[in-house]
Amino acid sequence: MVRRTGRRPGNPDTREAILSAARSAFAEKGYDGASIRAIATGAGVDPALVHHYFGTKDKLFLATMNSPVDPVDLITEATAGDRDEIGVRFVRAFLAMWDGPRGSAAVALLRSVVGTEWTAKLFREFIITQILRRAVPRLGLDPAEAHLRITLAASHLAGLALARYVIKVEPLASSPSETLVAAVGPAVQRYLTGDLPGVFPA
Amino acid sequence: MVRRTGRRPGNPDTREAILSAARSAFAEKGYDGASIRAIATGAGVDPALVHHYFGTKDKLFLATMNSPVDPVDLITEATAGDRDEIGVRFVRAFLAMWDGPRGSAAVALLRSVVGTEWTAKLFREFIITQILRRAVPRLGLDPAEAHLRITLAASHLAGLALARYVIKVEPLASSPSETLVAAVGPAVQRYLTGDLPGVFPA
Repeated sequence: MVRRTGRRPGNPDTREAILSAARSAFAEKGYDGASIRAIATGAGVDPALVHHYFGTKDKLFLATMNSPVDPVDLITEATAGDRDEIGVRFVRAFLAMWDGPRGSAAVALLRSVVGTEWTAKLFREFIITQILRRAVPRLGLDPAEAHLRITLAASHLAGLALARYVIKVEPLASSPSETLVAAVGPAVQRYLTGDLPGVFPA
Repeated sequence: MVRRTGRRPGNPDTREAILSAARSAFAEKGYDGASIRAIATGAGVDPALVHHYFGTKDKLFLATMNSPVDPVDLITEATAGDRDEIGVRFVRAFLAMWDGPRGSAAVALLRSVVGTEWTAKLFREFIITQILRRAVPRLGLDPAEAHLRITLAASHLAGLALARYVIKVEPLASSPSETLVAAVGPAVQRYLTGDLPGVFPA
C-alpha cells in the first residue's frame, strides 16, 4: 500500500491506539458510559483527534466493531418502498452485504462475536445502540413490540449468515440469493409487521 | 468424582486419546472417510476398545462434537404427533435442550463451531451425517426439497440460540420459552412443510 503524502508516520499507530482504547471502554462501560474524552485519555491523544479520525461516537463504535455496514443504511434500504415488501428487501440487502466485498469482514465479525464473553458483550452494545436505538425507530413499529420483533428478525438473519457464510452448510451455502430472499423474506416480514398470536396480546 | 472400582487408572486417558484421534480423523477425512480402525490406530488402542467406550461410529462422532443432544431424538420428539404442529414442537424441544442441564455444553459447541475453519468443517460433517442423513428421513419430506427445507429451519434455530444463549440479546434472552415457541414455531413449520413459492417449482 502506498503511504499517503503529508501524513506523519505516527498516525496509523494513533488510529489503532484510539480503536484499542475505544474497544476496551465500550466493552467495560458500555456505549453510553464510554466517553470520547475517556477514550482519548486511554489512547494518550486529544479528544479532537478522535473526532478528526472517526467523526461521531456512533461511527467510532462501528469502526471498533469492524462493522461491514451501518445498520441504519440496511434499514433505510429495506423501508424505502412498499411496507408489505420490507421482509424481502431486508433479506436482499442483508445477503448483498455478505455476498459483497465487505462479506469477509462480516464473517470475521460474527466469528469474533461468538468467540468470547467479552466480544459478546460488545455485540450486545452494538445491537442495543446501533440497531435497536438508532435503526429500529425508522421502521415505525409499535414501541411496545418493536424490540422483540426486530430481535426475532435479526436472530433469523444471524443464523442464516452463520449457516451460509461461516459454517457453509449446503444447500444453503450455494443457493442463489434470490431463492433465499423468497424463502426467508416472508418470515422476516411476519416478525416485523405480522400478527403474532401468543406473542403479543391481541 | 468417585473412581469406579475395577477400572485401570489409564482408562480416562484412553478415552481422551480416542476422542482426540477421532476429532482429527473426522475433521481431516470427513465422517465417511474416517474409519474406526484408523481412529484406533491413531489413539494407539485396539478397535474393539473404541466400540467398547463409544458404541457406534455415530455415537463416537456425537461425543467428539460434545453434542448436548442426538439430533435424532429432537426430530423424533418433534414428529410424534400432529404434522401441522411439527414447527411448534420442534422449537419447544430445541429450547428445552438449551434451557436444560445440557445448555452450557450447547453454548460451548456453538462457540467452538464458529471459532475456526477447522471446527466449522467438523460441524458441516455433523450437519450432513447426523442431521441430514440420519434425522431428516424421519420427517417424511420430499427428498428433492428436504435438505434446503431443513437447513432453512436449522439456520433459524441456530440464530435464535446464538442471540438468546450466546450473545444474550434482550428481550429475546429473557422471554418465556413459550413466547418464542409461538413466534418461531410457525416459521419453522413453513420451512418444513409449507408452500415456498419462488423457492421450489410449483
